[in-house]
Amino acid sequence: MNDNTKIKIGLIQMAMRRQKQENLEIAIDKVRAAADRGAQVVCLPELFCSPYFCQTENPDFFDLAESIPGPATEAMRRVAKEKRIVIIASLFERRAPGLYHNTAAVLDQSGQIAGIYRKMHIPDDPAYYEKYYFTPGDLGFPAIPTDFGKLGVLICWDQWYPEAARLMALQGASILFYPTAIGWHPHEKEAYGESQKSAWITIQRAHAIANGVFVAAVNRVGYETRNDGETGIEFLGHSFLSDPFGNLIAQAGIAEDNLVAEIDLRQIEEVRRNWPFLRDRRIDFYSDLNRRYIDC
Amino acid sequence: MNDNTKIKIGLIQMAMRRQKQENLEIAIDKVRAAADRGAQVVCLPELFCSPYFCQTENPDFFDLAESIPGPATEAMRRVAKEKRIVIIASLFERRAPGLYHNTAAVLDQSGQIAGIYRKMHIPDDPAYYEKYYFTPGDLGFPAIPTDFGKLGVLICWDQWYPEAARLMALQGASILFYPTAIGWHPHEKEAYGESQKSAWITIQRAHAIANGVFVAAVNRVGYETRNDGETGIEFLGHSFLSDPFGNLIAQAGIAEDNLVAEIDLRQIEEVRRNWPFLRDRRIDFYSDLNRRYIDC
Repeated sequence: MNDNTKIKIGLIQMAMRRQKQENLEIAIDKVRAAADRGAQVVCLPELFCSPYFCQTENPDFFDLAESIPGPATEAMRRVAKEKRIVIIASLFERRAPGLYHNTAAVLDQSGQIAGIYRKMHIPDDPAYYEKYYFTPGDLGFPAIPTDFGKLGVLICWDQWYPEAARLMALQGASILFYPTAIGWHPHEKEAYGESQKSAWITIQRAHAIANGVFVAAVNRVGYETRNDGETGIEFLGHSFLSDPFGNLIAQAGIAEDNLVAEIDLRQIEEVRRNWPFLRDRRIDFYSDLNRRYIDC
Repeated sequence: MNDNTKIKIGLIQMAMRRQKQENLEIAIDKVRAAADRGAQVVCLPELFCSPYFCQTENPDFFDLAESIPGPATEAMRRVAKEKRIVIIASLFERRAPGLYHNTAAVLDQSGQIAGIYRKMHIPDDPAYYEKYYFTPGDLGFPAIPTDFGKLGVLICWDQWYPEAARLMALQGASILFYPTAIGWHPHEKEAYGESQKSAWITIQRAHAIANGVFVAAVNRVGYETRNDGETGIEFLGHSFLSDPFGNLIAQAGIAEDNLVAEIDLRQIEEVRRNWPFLRDRRIDFYSDLNRRYIDC
């Protein structure tokens, strides 16, 4: 365990190319570059090995999935060991024939898989047909211990659920990471684009505030076409790192970027002493959170 | 039940005077003025009948409490009936000798008490000594039915808890109201004032987003001195109304204000259809939310 409370976080905001091997190589270059700038915990965007294939439902795309451990985690754990860093790699996991997950692997300084997280909340909206591809996670919300403390790794749609952030914080996670693939439908962008971006940032800053933790959101960028002639998605970037008070420490725009910023874990206790929300939770009255809806 | 989905909301941002009767009369004037501008559901700030007495612990201040029903709810229900409006009145409730709550009463168009909410999350920080005065609520988080739909009335410190907002939304509350008394310690304002205000707005906008509901936060304003010579609190105002997407429909500054703004409840379904968060909650994995902390 690293005793230094100061940690440099790397957020790799990248645009994805067509070929898996090319994306993997570019990602490795970017992770190395972040490490060379001092980054100790580096997070890649959701499903960084491929374009966002969930824009359509196509059984051929299951070929993109791989086992964990597998080639991508092998490559990433070599980089983690070489650079003595932690890497958060979001992958399309093939668990068994016909059983696939949207999974993040955490590779640690020793080159081991410190833990995995299988996306629990699966969206399904026009052009985000994830329920077709991803079986909902069955591991719950495990905070993953690393040399830099416990990390709460969640994935994209999870970011809209305060329950997920809370469960990670209650296990002692000090930083929440959200590998993400969120974008604008071009026909909606003018009317709703700014509100959508703002909502996306706001709710994640709120997780930082409610729980007194750091939050890193790592999105992809670029316009990705579809092969059926329909309009594609413009991924909105704006990856950011928030402190436990909801202040933005670093933020990207809509271009590729490689953010490296330092945090000090001592800020967590400082913020929570001043606003001690964990002290006053009414756990005697929260049981209905386990219900779908409270009909009455 | 009103069939019109458009409702005008009134937010009374006021500064409190020393005397209870004076505050009550001013509040009634302001509620009438909002009603005359079309407001149909009007919310007053937390504990609007008095200065924020929790700045010190003084047993004499229990004299400020009154029963519900009692003089304040009597006065307010007459106004509600006269103007055919709903009023949300936050009061210091004397439930029994030595048993006091921080309670909001909802008075409806017919002049009845539609329901009460007893503050569940009780803060206790320097100059906010609420645990001395207020017994934590024992009614849970009941959404209160009115002629304008179900209202989720919560109070101040509750606003930092996503659990409270969620439980109200799961019962069908369409608007969350947060009567509030939040301010700056003058010695902290320069360094932290802007961040504190931003966090306060951000987390409540996030409740609107996470749940697809409207949120109205109603704060007091003005500098309130203490009678022990210590520095007082500058209440920070900035009452606001958010739509279910987190967009601010109306917002006050740091002066007294009387906001009246229209909402359309149909926006709730429109927003939730596009971002259907309630559909995907993992209620099979939320049970640890009932725990204080997950030691491991």
